[in-house]
Amino acid sequence: MPNPSAAMLVIGDEILSGRTRDTNTHFLATELTKQGIDLKEVRVVSDEASAIVAAVQALSAGYDHVFTSGGIGPTHDDITADCIAQAFEAHLDVREDARAILAAHYANSGQELNAARLRMARIPDGALLIDNPVSSAPGFSLGNVHVMAGVPMVFQAMVASVLPGLSGGAPLLSQSLRLMRGEGDIAAFLSDLAARHSDVSIGCYPFQHNGAYGANVVIRGQEGAAVDAAMSELAQEMGL
Amino acid sequence: MPNPSAAMLVIGDEILSGRTRDTNTHFLATELTKQGIDLKEVRVVSDEASAIVAAVQALSAGYDHVFTSGGIGPTHDDITADCIAQAFEAHLDVREDARAILAAHYANSGQELNAARLRMARIPDGALLIDNPVSSAPGFSLGNVHVMAGVPMVFQAMVASVLPGLSGGAPLLSQSLRLMRGEGDIAAFLSDLAARHSDVSIGCYPFQHNGAYGANVVIRGQEGAAVDAAMSELAQEMGL
Repeated sequence: MPNPSAAMLVIGDEILSGRTRDTNTHFLATELTKQGIDLKEVRVVSDEASAIVAAVQALSAGYDHVFTSGGIGPTHDDITADCIAQAFEAHLDVREDARAILAAHYANSGQELNAARLRMARIPDGALLIDNPVSSAPGFSLGNVHVMAGVPMVFQAMVASVLPGLSGGAPLLSQSLRLMRGEGDIAAFLSDLAARHSDVSIGCYPFQHNGAYGANVVIRGQEGAAVDAAMSELAQEMGL
Repeated sequence: MPNPSAAMLVIGDEILSGRTRDTNTHFLATELTKQGIDLKEVRVVSDEASAIVAAVQALSAGYDHVFTSGGIGPTHDDITADCIAQAFEAHLDVREDARAILAAHYANSGQELNAARLRMARIPDGALLIDNPVSSAPGFSLGNVHVMAGVPMVFQAMVASVLPGLSGGAPLLSQSLRLMRGEGDIAAFLSDLAARHSDVSIGCYPFQHNGAYGANVVIRGQEGAAVDAAMSELAQEMGL
């Protein structure tokens, strides 16, 4: 059975303008690979409702799971919850379970639960809350879409809350071999190797080191024996 | 007149698996912002022909410019040129101008221009070559799609080759103000400010520093006077 598939949707003008560097995608990619869920596509869109809704609908239909990052804070440009509700034609309003979480948090920290902060308790009908142990304002899962904060520390905590509940497949195993050979010198052999070992995927990533050309060859697969077999052939061919 | 729009397409399993961290998107975002071209969407797709072709067609139709990164090396998994040709129904074969560039480079470096390396001279009919001062194998522009290498040093050199030929709009100006105030405390004011200043966009990016809550407010726009006006109001409201 193939692994479950996933897509990531990053919401934020600040990524697209270059002001902020997205680190959530790399974190999620690493965690999903460990769990045997295949991240197949990432999209970054701007803070425009039409762009967010279209991306949510396309990705939700195309993959088993969708993870979103960004746009769930208290300010006017935080429109992700509205867009998810619209994408699923779900009703959106302040929900009592989310309000109670925020009320406890702000009472505890001596801050006011004002109208802006109360926006973060707006949760679509039918959604499950995602625990936020860092700053309390919850994310939520609606259908196959998991809606999380953009602040990396909060995003990472929410991923840790969500992932254990999702069933994964076989984790992807990989072995790599660093060769001081030009990519073009080994390409023909790698192509033959890939044809003989269709149960693994073989990638080749060139680098330069002190002016010399090299390449990292990475062999990935779900069965250790298959990865071993292809890697042994590669090592033998390279005289190692 | 609105600025030209752009999309970025990153091609590579190694990004989606978490093995490699994509740095090309952030570089391109920064360069486009300087030139007054609005990056509106980013997609990362796997090394599968159907995924690449579909993304190229969707982004090429949706934006003024599309920039791709990855998949133009000599190995069997480098299928970007094939996919671009397919997306535009263009003929793809070794082109003499590209072959001449590679022949000169490999003669110079004492390496063999073998069949694998010759793959990098396969250029779609009608495409313009993109200069690669780092490792010589050219990128190309076909229609509004600019096809570039994934290796960051080469990608950056190719961006420098392509961007001067594209007409930009007004560069996006921005000013930011760092406030030691909770995002929720200033959200209502920022919402009003945004409504009064529709000629700028106002973003709010929370942070924690030594346990205290703060926020960077960023005001962006194409006219300096408009950004100044909104920023003055913000500073006044904050008592600065």
